[in-house]
Amino acid sequence: MNTISTSVKDRLAIITLNRGKSNSLNREMVTELSDMLHNIAQDENIGGVMITGKDHFFSAGLDLIELYHYNEEEAKSFWHLFLGFTAQITAFKKPLVAAINGHSPAGGCVIALACDARVMAEGKYIIGLNEVPVGIIVPHSIFSMYAFWLGKSNAYKNLLEGKLFSPDEALAIGLVDELTKSESILTAAERRVRKYMAFEANTWQQSKLNLRKDLIAATSADQSKDLEIMLKQWWSPSTRAILKSLIDGLQKPKS
Amino acid sequence: MNTISTSVKDRLAIITLNRGKSNSLNREMVTELSDMLHNIAQDENIGGVMITGKDHFFSAGLDLIELYHYNEEEAKSFWHLFLGFTAQITAFKKPLVAAINGHSPAGGCVIALACDARVMAEGKYIIGLNEVPVGIIVPHSIFSMYAFWLGKSNAYKNLLEGKLFSPDEALAIGLVDELTKSESILTAAERRVRKYMAFEANTWQQSKLNLRKDLIAATSADQSKDLEIMLKQWWSPSTRAILKSLIDGLQKPKS
Amino acid sequence: MNTISTSVKDRLAIITLNRGKSNSLNREMVTELSDMLHNIAQDENIGGVMITGKDHFFSAGLDLIELYHYNEEEAKSFWHLFLGFTAQITAFKKPLVAAINGHSPAGGCVIALACDARVMAEGKYIIGLNEVPVGIIVPHSIFSMYAFWLGKSNAYKNLLEGKLFSPDEALAIGLVDELTKSESILTAAERRVRKYMAFEANTWQQSKLNLRKDLIAATSADQSKDLEIMLKQWWSPSTRAILKSLIDGLQKPKS
Repeated sequence: MNTISTSVKDRLAIITLNRGKSNSLNREMVTELSDMLHNIAQDENIGGVMITGKDHFFSAGLDLIELYHYNEEEAKSFWHLFLGFTAQITAFKKPLVAAINGHSPAGGCVIALACDARVMAEGKYIIGLNEVPVGIIVPHSIFSMYAFWLGKSNAYKNLLEGKLFSPDEALAIGLVDELTKSESILTAAERRVRKYMAFEANTWQQSKLNLRKDLIAATSADQSKDLEIMLKQWWSPSTRAILKSLIDGLQKPKS
Repeated sequence: MNTISTSVKDRLAIITLNRGKSNSLNREMVTELSDMLHNIAQDENIGGVMITGKDHFFSAGLDLIELYHYNEEEAKSFWHLFLGFTAQITAFKKPLVAAINGHSPAGGCVIALACDARVMAEGKYIIGLNEVPVGIIVPHSIFSMYAFWLGKSNAYKNLLEGKLFSPDEALAIGLVDELTKSESILTAAERRVRKYMAFEANTWQQSKLNLRKDLIAATSADQSKDLEIMLKQWWSPSTRAILKSLIDGLQKPKS
Repeated sequence: MNTISTSVKDRLAIITLNRGKSNSLNREMVTELSDMLHNIAQDENIGGVMITGKDHFFSAGLDLIELYHYNEEEAKSFWHLFLGFTAQITAFKKPLVAAINGHSPAGGCVIALACDARVMAEGKYIIGLNEVPVGIIVPHSIFSMYAFWLGKSNAYKNLLEGKLFSPDEALAIGLVDELTKSESILTAAERRVRKYMAFEANTWQQSKLNLRKDLIAATSADQSKDLEIMLKQWWSPSTRAILKSLIDGLQKPKS
């Protein structure tokens, strides 16, 4: 695996996102994450999972630079892959906790939302779903994930402004469950996932699937029609222009 | 149009409810509102909408005096019209903000609930859904709208008491988003709608439709069976008696 | 009736749970409750219902001692009975208020959740859904009931920890609506149910059914497949071991 590394400690798998400086998600990384979750789901020696990033970045979200250069076929297939991954991680039945050690906007936030609990590092970090300002249409499945934790009203209002939250704001609105110092985040996240792992495993996991029934239905639903509208927008001059200007900003050397 | 007036200011349409003293909703007014929203939806020169009322009244809700005198056919067709209008305004895709400059019970509150944000004037005003005390059965679609903003528990409890809120209470429970002095309400509402209008329009509007998917399904669902039960109650002696006594109160000259 | 007693006071039925020391629910008690609700639903002389328990125990939940000794056929039929009862009480249309005068975990909490309002006695009591620690898989229908009052996020997190709440915590999270001294609980609950009974009855009751439409659908859904998974877990050595140790604790004489 090139973009993630995984270690196992006493039945707990720790997936560390590890791609470039900011863990931006491209096809390879989403594929590797998907494969890893698939393997862990089958592995009887693993009872729970923690996902974490690198210093200052849990994940910056989708790799807009790579995505910008995808052709029509590649873009379509990537978005299918990403929504399929969203469905898979939502339906992952073992305990799954995010240790969000830095920025976590957009796609980074989606991964965190799929987890059972979220611990975030204090600091000048951002987290939230900011698709609308970027010119990306928010699918119903992503709203369902946001609304599951924030409630419909807060999910709606914040999505339609593309609001990004500080860790304190994220805690207050229920987007994360706990804030810690950076150096304590793995300990705090491990405490949470091991609490879940202490219950009778099948009881806990089947209950989790029952509790997520509607959420799994929303993320697993056929979204081809929504994707068509979304991809049409993706290729529109206005969204291309927003993406171009974002990418130019990302690629400009910091002075 | 006899019951509403509309002006346009820099791509923003301002619909002013303007019927009688209290903007109570009758067939003509609901039809005109519906036609106006239909036109605005098609009009490429309009990017967003504000709905406001007159001093002290956003809208007093349905015109019970006129409705009381409808015959069976008229009552049935009015309720179909009103629920159809509710579905239409819920699925209206351009930014829509309510400037609630006075009382807004029942049907007035329904219009406000369909908006993306609500600004309300401070003062001795009431807002909320008080159908139950009036003897009107609350349809599932209206509950869905209330629960979208208040959460299911608060929507349930308050509907079953027909609770009317002061502006402060409405803010606290999430029924409105902001309170202002009467004289500042249009400015405050305009600030909100223009914030939405600043985003790439198709991205914002398609996202809005995706976020409202379940709500649109609930308001657009065939409610004929519910309506039958509701109309049977409407014509029952007990509800007729409540309506009669409310109307007598409304028509009595204030001493 | 052996396990419940019912009195009627001015159109208000008061059901008192009365089985053993702790009102634990067995087949007989669930059947009697179901029959009583069925009769009250039909009885035109009754306009509302209060359910209460005995000192210190609203209901300790399912009678694990009796259930532990059920054979496969009996266990399966009991769980079908209990989920059917849950569907019935959720769809009960007359005003229904719980006077929770003591402990109310698991099945006791489920009965309370089906009510329109909950008043709880102050004191060292517990309430909540703790199926997961007991080794019982939580069905989707029970999650729907919990989430209706607590919101999805709180329902999810607390179910997956099997959290039991103190009365103060239950009030803060919205699981109960009011706390009172033990001696005032019937007065407080009566005040609430009579408030509902004061409205035009058919309007209130049909509105209640409309507001609960999704909840009734969730509890009335065919859950045979979920039950199969749940029963398989019920008979697994790990859940049998948890149940055995709980029962041993219950049957040990207090020193």
